[in-house]
Amino acid sequence: MPSTTMLPLLAAMLRLTGTDSHSTPVLEYGEHPAIEVAPGPAGQGVAAAAGMALAEQVLSRRFGRSLVNHRTWVLAQDTDLATGVAMEAAQLAGRFGLDRLAMLVAPPAEDRGSEFADSLARFSASGWTVRKVAADDLPAITSALAATLRARKPTLIACLPPSSTPSSLAVHLPPEEELTGPWSPTARRGASTRRSWLRRFARHRQRDAFERELMRHRPALFQEDWHRAWLWRMRSALDNSTQESGLTGLHALSDILPELVCLTASSAYSMSATGEEQTGWRAPPALASGLDCGIQEHGMAGVLNGLSLHGGVLPCCAASMMTVDRMRSALRMAALMRQKMLYLLTGDGLALGDGGGGWQPVEQLASLRATPNLAVFRPGSPSETFKCWEAALDWQGGPAVLVLCPQNHNSAVPLPPPSYGSAARGGYVVQQQENRLVTLIASGPEVAIAVEASHHLARRDIRATVVSIPCWELFAMQPQTYRQKVLGGKGLRVGIEAASGFGWERWLGPEGVFVGMDDFGTSAPANALYERFGITAEAICKKVEHHLFVSGAARAAPHQPRAHARGP
Amino acid sequence: MPSTTMLPLLAAMLRLTGTDSHSTPVLEYGEHPAIEVAPGPAGQGVAAAAGMALAEQVLSRRFGRSLVNHRTWVLAQDTDLATGVAMEAAQLAGRFGLDRLAMLVAPPAEDRGSEFADSLARFSASGWTVRKVAADDLPAITSALAATLRARKPTLIACLPPSSTPSSLAVHLPPEEELTGPWSPTARRGASTRRSWLRRFARHRQRDAFERELMRHRPALFQEDWHRAWLWRMRSALDNSTQESGLTGLHALSDILPELVCLTASSAYSMSATGEEQTGWRAPPALASGLDCGIQEHGMAGVLNGLSLHGGVLPCCAASMMTVDRMRSALRMAALMRQKMLYLLTGDGLALGDGGGGWQPVEQLASLRATPNLAVFRPGSPSETFKCWEAALDWQGGPAVLVLCPQNHNSAVPLPPPSYGSAARGGYVVQQQENRLVTLIASGPEVAIAVEASHHLARRDIRATVVSIPCWELFAMQPQTYRQKVLGGKGLRVGIEAASGFGWERWLGPEGVFVGMDDFGTSAPANALYERFGITAEAICKKVEHHLFVSGAARAAPHQPRAHARGP
Repeated sequence: MPSTTMLPLLAAMLRLTGTDSHSTPVLEYGEHPAIEVAPGPAGQGVAAAAGMALAEQVLSRRFGRSLVNHRTWVLAQDTDLATGVAMEAAQLAGRFGLDRLAMLVAPPAEDRGSEFADSLARFSASGWTVRKVAADDLPAITSALAATLRARKPTLIACLPPSSTPSSLAVHLPPEEELTGPWSPTARRGASTRRSWLRRFARHRQRDAFERELMRHRPALFQEDWHRAWLWRMRSALDNSTQESGLTGLHALSDILPELVCLTASSAYSMSATGEEQTGWRAPPALASGLDCGIQEHGMAGVLNGLSLHGGVLPCCAASMMTVDRMRSALRMAALMRQKMLYLLTGDGLALGDGGGGWQPVEQLASLRATPNLAVFRPGSPSETFKCWEAALDWQGGPAVLVLCPQNHNSAVPLPPPSYGSAARGGYVVQQQENRLVTLIASGPEVAIAVEASHHLARRDIRATVVSIPCWELFAMQPQTYRQKVLGGKGLRVGIEAASGFGWERWLGPEGVFVGMDDFGTSAPANALYERFGITAEAICKKVEHHLFVSGAARAAPHQPRAHARGP
Repeated sequence: MPSTTMLPLLAAMLRLTGTDSHSTPVLEYGEHPAIEVAPGPAGQGVAAAAGMALAEQVLSRRFGRSLVNHRTWVLAQDTDLATGVAMEAAQLAGRFGLDRLAMLVAPPAEDRGSEFADSLARFSASGWTVRKVAADDLPAITSALAATLRARKPTLIACLPPSSTPSSLAVHLPPEEELTGPWSPTARRGASTRRSWLRRFARHRQRDAFERELMRHRPALFQEDWHRAWLWRMRSALDNSTQESGLTGLHALSDILPELVCLTASSAYSMSATGEEQTGWRAPPALASGLDCGIQEHGMAGVLNGLSLHGGVLPCCAASMMTVDRMRSALRMAALMRQKMLYLLTGDGLALGDGGGGWQPVEQLASLRATPNLAVFRPGSPSETFKCWEAALDWQGGPAVLVLCPQNHNSAVPLPPPSYGSAARGGYVVQQQENRLVTLIASGPEVAIAVEASHHLARRDIRATVVSIPCWELFAMQPQTYRQKVLGGKGLRVGIEAASGFGWERWLGPEGVFVGMDDFGTSAPANALYERFGITAEAICKKVEHHLFVSGAARAAPHQPRAHARGP
């Protein structure tokens, strides 16, 4: 994560190692091989560096030190250290024992009070070794750098201002040949190190797997294995909520994809209704390697970026849907850099009703959908979850987010098989009605409510088609004719989602109706909350009847006495 | 910020002080006088407490200790301390010297390694006094609490597990009368303290001002004074960008509203194009009281909530638009609790182009607009900025966000006076054309581009009306007839905003066209970026012509040879 002030140093390093000529690199990720992370909010670089060091740790354990054996060096600014994300990442680096991570940092030109010393103390209190050297004391610097090679913790080296003024250095600057000269052996040593690595690699028994993972290719027969693993794991699923099947998908994936690295925040766990047992997250046995990120979701998301940028792993994390607000800066960087990673967001919907409105997502879905390069999946049934898992793994443009709900609405009304299209195309018809008068469009657990509402409407002789849109991004990419066939040409369109209706006009048109949350949630059991916001089959049914009556379209439907229409 | 585990303690305290009977309070803000903050993400409570202590500090300086003289006590959980927002808030509390803030915290039941001790060390390194007491050592607790009364720093008291097992305490629990008995003098002392405060208050010479601010009433003649102060301050405005006039509004407000408290993040400053001088933020002289929050935006936003919840101040903060991602958890809490506060977000648009895509807002506007109770203002000219400032001050439902752009587009084409409606209604007609064929709808600096595009279109005999929507929330609250008159009944609608188009379908309808950013930004000067994303008068003009041609509506317009239509 280069900042403008670091550019001259970066240019000098590139020149000295013979990587680049005189040109100064542009500060844009992807424009220059030396720019490994896009510039972004302060502190994200510290977290990304921790992720790179973690990737090295994970890969060296799998492939051995003969293949994976390198260090992560960071040149940070003092402001980076003071941010919340850096302090969270520092705690994670300390917890994971990332002893191959070393960070050099200089105090600010004008330090107010003891803020820099405080930053050092906070890193020291987060499981780091902190060393101080004078920036012009070459032996001290050398010995500090040498000490990092033996370190058992991540290291922070504070480069304090030299006793002499920096201007004197500039005056005595020798001609360029004298400066670049001593670097030639370094460059030659690097080349030789690389040659011997290539020789070792050519003979390595895990060469194919290593190469495949680094190229981000899938194993042979992935589709078949993944399907088989899914079916096997689904046999022991506890219920048919999307959260349970989403986590089952993770378990199945960890069975067959050794490059999967999963970080978990404690918020991924959710308390059950009885408040006694933890439900939700269960670490897959193959992944129970202690990558627990506790309450540090922002640091975790930043580390995830570093994992992906390092390569050789498929990064994944699990946290609660609400914590996406805290992770946003990091998640946005991933989308900006088009890094492939998976976010499993549990506890969506109004499930955590009793904890108060602060725990109920409202605008989070809209804000994720508004982010470029990001795919948001909100499946409504176990079979949709499987399709969404597949589509998320196929999504190449950036991060894929699976929004999972612990509620179990569809136990009452199991979703019928698709009538037209497929969840893999982002949106499809769950239940078709000829000459539809109404199209009920929902996502996630609200699809089951829409199906139930359509049955109510059928009893009133109102023909309603039910559409599920688990992924807006994929659905928007479908041809116009497909979208038109799914959404229906005319008639009333009703959007149903337990979230903010912002953005839903895209599918509903100017005359459409949205049933969802126009305010924050509140404390109540989930079912009561669904009723409070009118997200029930009965309330939807009434709303549809009202709109059809007002618009006069109801007249098109054959009338029957109401008492009769309510059914047997 | 009560958590479920603290509920029994809270209920006991209420019972002992005679405030409440046996009922356990509901975990919902606004439902019970003892619930001062809504439950929410870990760490937000620490920041809110710092804000309450800051409000006390600010008010006691203004009104003296005879009126304002209290302390902020926090019972925190160990996990709160480890979050980024708590660590940022802790730094701010240390920096501001909030010596009347004291926090009690117990280690977790199962501490892994030394995480709790590390948390204490980090607070100690953030300008806090940290004391450790055994939870059953009453003299030690008393002396630690007494020490906080003399403290010159915020205090953290770690309540370590008692040597005896807690179950033995439960066994020896005396009957309730023996427990509540010793508390009666405390309750009586509180009542007596309150009576003498009321006597002092009745005679206090600043009584009226204090009462007015606590009731959140405006000073008499506020409208007149504010208008006069605005005009006076605008005389020394450096340019006519909305950022400059937005900050001018803040200066004018600080002249006439003594309860204004403004926190500033260093990101509110932006580098000028030459990279040599800082532009953007200039602290109003009356507010230059050192409430500088540096890089700790998330902590700042959390502190802002505490300021507002305490009351007696009008909290305001300034930071860059991009950092809203970091502040979101706290900003959301403010919206949830409907707290009135002002966010000035500088550096919007593509102004910071050279810093890379990571600094260019794309989805931020959409995600703010999707949040309930929040009003987002994005003015396009100095006069719109004034109207938006007024509307933001009038907004009662929650926080108001002013999105300000340092670019100076409208210097070329000054906006004409409104043709119909007013910016105070959220949206209005900037430039009316009879029998409009096209409606160009824009916000912020893009309004000037839309006006320029309408001139280009006029030369091609395409009648285009220009509409500005600086505030979606206000515009959506207007009567249907007003909105219809502003947006126009039929014809092509074009939305123009240098941001994600997510949600724009609300105003454009299914046939509308959006001109904006469908991807993240990149490194380039701002003007080049506007061209790259096609947000220029010429590109909009071409797009409109193309759409009219495709839809066949162009035939309705009188045809002229194209070469001629291109103008003189």
